[in-house]
Amino acid sequence: MKALVIAAGMGSRLSTMTNNRPKPLARLLGLSLVERVILTARNASVREFVVVIGYLGAMIKEELGDGSRYGVEITYIENTEWQRGNALSVLKAREVLKERFFLLMSDHLFEPSVLQEAGSSQLDDKEVLMVVDSAPDDYIDMEDATRVMVRDGRIVSIGKGLSDYNAVDCGIFSCSVSLFDALQESIMHGDETLSGGMQRLADRGMLKAYDLNGRFWIDIDTEEAFRTAEDQLCRSLIKPTDGFISRNLNRPVSIRLSKVLVKTRIKPDTISLSGFTLSLLAALLLSFGNYLPVLLGGLLVQVSSVLDGCDGEVARLKHQQSDYGAWFDAVLDRYADAAVILGLTYGWWNSHGGDYLVWVTGYLALTGSLMNSYTAIKYDTVVLKEQKGSGWRFGRDTRSFLIMLGAVLNQLFALLVVLAVIANFVSVRRLYVLRKT
Amino acid sequence: MKALVIAAGMGSRLSTMTNNRPKPLARLLGLSLVERVILTARNASVREFVVVIGYLGAMIKEELGDGSRYGVEITYIENTEWQRGNALSVLKAREVLKERFFLLMSDHLFEPSVLQEAGSSQLDDKEVLMVVDSAPDDYIDMEDATRVMVRDGRIVSIGKGLSDYNAVDCGIFSCSVSLFDALQESIMHGDETLSGGMQRLADRGMLKAYDLNGRFWIDIDTEEAFRTAEDQLCRSLIKPTDGFISRNLNRPVSIRLSKVLVKTRIKPDTISLSGFTLSLLAALLLSFGNYLPVLLGGLLVQVSSVLDGCDGEVARLKHQQSDYGAWFDAVLDRYADAAVILGLTYGWWNSHGGDYLVWVTGYLALTGSLMNSYTAIKYDTVVLKEQKGSGWRFGRDTRSFLIMLGAVLNQLFALLVVLAVIANFVSVRRLYVLRKT
Repeated sequence: MKALVIAAGMGSRLSTMTNNRPKPLARLLGLSLVERVILTARNASVREFVVVIGYLGAMIKEELGDGSRYGVEITYIENTEWQRGNALSVLKAREVLKERFFLLMSDHLFEPSVLQEAGSSQLDDKEVLMVVDSAPDDYIDMEDATRVMVRDGRIVSIGKGLSDYNAVDCGIFSCSVSLFDALQESIMHGDETLSGGMQRLADRGMLKAYDLNGRFWIDIDTEEAFRTAEDQLCRSLIKPTDGFISRNLNRPVSIRLSKVLVKTRIKPDTISLSGFTLSLLAALLLSFGNYLPVLLGGLLVQVSSVLDGCDGEVARLKHQQSDYGAWFDAVLDRYADAAVILGLTYGWWNSHGGDYLVWVTGYLALTGSLMNSYTAIKYDTVVLKEQKGSGWRFGRDTRSFLIMLGAVLNQLFALLVVLAVIANFVSVRRLYVLRKT
Repeated sequence: MKALVIAAGMGSRLSTMTNNRPKPLARLLGLSLVERVILTARNASVREFVVVIGYLGAMIKEELGDGSRYGVEITYIENTEWQRGNALSVLKAREVLKERFFLLMSDHLFEPSVLQEAGSSQLDDKEVLMVVDSAPDDYIDMEDATRVMVRDGRIVSIGKGLSDYNAVDCGIFSCSVSLFDALQESIMHGDETLSGGMQRLADRGMLKAYDLNGRFWIDIDTEEAFRTAEDQLCRSLIKPTDGFISRNLNRPVSIRLSKVLVKTRIKPDTISLSGFTLSLLAALLLSFGNYLPVLLGGLLVQVSSVLDGCDGEVARLKHQQSDYGAWFDAVLDRYADAAVILGLTYGWWNSHGGDYLVWVTGYLALTGSLMNSYTAIKYDTVVLKEQKGSGWRFGRDTRSFLIMLGAVLNQLFALLVVLAVIANFVSVRRLYVLRKT
């Protein structure tokens, strides 16, 4: 299915943030609003876009180009009458849309799954589907929202001032071409809003509702909404499998850092490699064995652990996630883990006498650490699938934190013993836990 | 869908192998023929079975029970006229089968995917689907096979003596209840064979053909066919991801061993644990450092590597595979790898002087070995999906073989260097290979 994106308006209420640029180009966490809408739809498998431009349209066209940069195809339609109602912008696309299409607003952000599910709804040829929110979050501005009354899955009335309503319009639609006739009719009767055309469809029982059921969406109309969207996107970066240290110590810092990084051109893989390099440096410092370098090395391990969150966060915030990227990061992490454990084993052995037991303990710590990650691949899948709590974890966040602690206390051998015991215990325990499921 | 399994006949041609037991109970690689048919259908998601028994039927009923042992439900129907044609056996089930069902012969083995795909074919209410083989393998006995003539996806004629034919009947069907009428009619006209009823359906254009396209099936009528089935099942145990050592050295031995093991009650997990115990013993022997124990340890590593194939082979041959079992085996293997590398590092260090470089090399070998397995999880998925050759591998089979070689040559340090270099090189190389795909 193609998507029609309306990016013709001026968005005067956000003018302080857009500095003489059209609102669809307002940058939110490193991407413009219209880029976010296009990339979200791409995640939901949309590959062809028709963008209606108006106010400062040339700027939008220049920024998005033909879409090849995003792996999609973008064509433009100009609406010189952008100061009139938004129904006209939709109507301009009549000639290029001959089959069912998604209708999206360039300033409405949402989760990809919303579009995926709306797109797979069963609809008759002439029906239009409107995504609605029957339980809007606190941050939705109810004064400004377009309200709708839904009865038996169909919308019966729609309007900003509606006093009797049970949901709000999310500005996301799956449209039959019959929408164009409805809009034409509404305009002829003097109503140039999209809602006017929708009301005509509703009158004929042709406007179905799809409730997004608590999933994220927001209409970015004000600075407050803009900040809310930033917060919500950042909050979504916390993973269900995040351990205690990650959730409470690393994420708060790494998310702040990522908010800065998304504004640069730095790629996720580059962040992964930087974290890796820091770990190697930490391993080198730990290998000296005496306190000052060990302390620095330990702190660096924790810094690297925080940075380790940023690559994934930046990737997700900028829609640059890839299976390969996640795996590349994971493999580098394992080598970094191995280097750090080698460094601290050698450091302690070198500075505190050459008992082979230090080496054996380091061996067991290394095995435990790598096995923790090896078993997590399967364990996390099962835990996530069954929606269970993450249970006992001993992830990289915790291991790195312990290494920092061991370095600060100058107790590297005790640290190795702790790592060897806990890491292997947790790995072997998983064999029992999964046997039962 | 339910499955009707015909297990009423005597199978006189296999009498030397069945010793006064009915043919469906003839044991092939640890499972009786009828068990294999039921378990194969279970793999294709069939959960309810109706088994028609006749000759020594009580024995079959006693062996299979209510099916709970296999996680399925089995009901029995007795055909006391089993000496007459097999159409009568099918007709006996008329009262319990009111919807589309699979019709299977207790002596016809096949791959689960055949049933899955036959089951998802588009069929009209009254149509019957016959699985046919248009390019029978050499081992199919063409003299005895039921031949069919297929035209435009439909069977036009069927019979053992057919001179004009282009496929053979595999004895696997997806049946509409209309089959019962056709059989009744055929019996009234004096033909008591299943083929007689099928011919009547064919006459009305209601018998569709589904070509299994080179996949495995066999009618076990003779001792020769019995041996062929054993060989084919064993051959299917060789995995596309098997490395050079595994394919040419380990598998030929492990498959022979598995052929014996399937006849016992030994479970796959028990075999995994035995291999693991042998590895720990090997690690202990290697840690002595002097030649005799090292030599024994090295040989034991190779023996354990061979045994490591048996758990999966036995599981597949006895339809006892599980995701958990494969993972349990993999985790034990990693710990076994770690123990062996620790053993040989300590052994060399202890017997050849305490240079710390031995420990560092052992570290790198351990990291490389575990990272090999860690990266293989993703690498193998991609390689398998893209149907590429397995490319550069450095699997457990090769690593174990090298350890044996190093032990035989009493060159454990050189071995550690080789393991450290190759294992890490192969792991890091995967980062580049997958980046390109």
